[in-house]
Amino acid sequence: MPRGAALDGNALRTRRTVERILAESLRLFNALGESNVTTGMIAGALEISPGNLYYHFRNKERIVEALFRQFESRIDVDPRPSGDAAQAIEDLWLYLHLMLEAIWEYRFLYRNLDDLVARNRKLREVFNRIIDRKLAAVESLCADLVRSGAMKASRGEIGALGKNVLVVATYWLNYQSIRERRDDLSAADLGQGAFQVLAIVAPYLQGAAREHLGSLGERYID
Amino acid sequence: MPRGAALDGNALRTRRTVERILAESLRLFNALGESNVTTGMIAGALEISPGNLYYHFRNKERIVEALFRQFESRIDVDPRPSGDAAQAIEDLWLYLHLMLEAIWEYRFLYRNLDDLVARNRKLREVFNRIIDRKLAAVESLCADLVRSGAMKASRGEIGALGKNVLVVATYWLNYQSIRERRDDLSAADLGQGAFQVLAIVAPYLQGAAREHLGSLGERYID
Repeated sequence: MPRGAALDGNALRTRRTVERILAESLRLFNALGESNVTTGMIAGALEISPGNLYYHFRNKERIVEALFRQFESRIDVDPRPSGDAAQAIEDLWLYLHLMLEAIWEYRFLYRNLDDLVARNRKLREVFNRIIDRKLAAVESLCADLVRSGAMKASRGEIGALGKNVLVVATYWLNYQSIRERRDDLSAADLGQGAFQVLAIVAPYLQGAAREHLGSLGERYID
Repeated sequence: MPRGAALDGNALRTRRTVERILAESLRLFNALGESNVTTGMIAGALEISPGNLYYHFRNKERIVEALFRQFESRIDVDPRPSGDAAQAIEDLWLYLHLMLEAIWEYRFLYRNLDDLVARNRKLREVFNRIIDRKLAAVESLCADLVRSGAMKASRGEIGALGKNVLVVATYWLNYQSIRERRDDLSAADLGQGAFQVLAIVAPYLQGAAREHLGSLGERYID
């Protein structure tokens, strides 16, 4: 076997193991809460030795950091700007669903967000980088809507609504899970979250855009 | 000494000890995080014996429950309805400050809200009772503003804005503490929180009420 091929095989096996560790850790963190999961449990669930796990991740915190970076690239998509107002709302609606789905997939991060970022500055910086980008995306989308006449809002109003969009998107699933008295949130809960976020933007929309949003939201109004 | 007076003295001493335990626990929970504080640390800080503490509170969870109930009665105030639109906004502004100050005072509850209510159903019910009352207060206040002509919003819009008001008020201090990269929030952060909550209501306000809000919020817009 040529030397290069053997190295590739090792590199692939290493990458595969890292991926399995991350996937299993994510599953366990989400199911049991990150603080209730040990590296021993992760190694046990994967039927690998603790030594093998430590070879890839020095400790549990390194796994959490890797998952946070994975989440960061997972949600690094921006809503597409669109000339048509109704289409822009439809795009935004879809985009919010994608964001909330990603948050749901990595929900252990959000469930313990304040603890995680308080104990680890690296994680706090990742989170703040995510928020900075999302704030910029919301503000630029609103500026587009204002230019096309689909939205009427001052710079100050857009600044305040941007922050509120981020607070509601960040904490919606936590709030909903307490309110609904259950952990097993569903697609309907994500839809309600997207609707709540859009409700912050809605009163600034004009004409067709606002009507279109109204029809999207009808089933989420109780 | 007459027997009644002796009993009163005991009852007073008991109540005084309970109050001291709760005040010291609150201080330690806020400063170090509830999960990092033991009943031994609380007893030590008060220079009382662990046995004395256990006599009043069987375990730490009972202390957390008592503090949550204390918080519940602390924030059980409703915004006063008012005929005058500008005055109603002024009252709402003050009311939001009071609410956020109370949350800040008992911030350990909010910092670990999701963990606390996940592990203890009694706490989840207290929290939901608080939210139910606050939702009703916001909706009734909005209905008043609609009746007086200071607000223009449908029932569905009021329902959605009520939930957003609660999500932002509940999680604002957590969000702000991550964003500002510091734990020592100040009066200005509470003001910003009140402004963010009002920004959800603002676009539905009409005429004088909206202008009055604009002038209140000017210093919080960056």
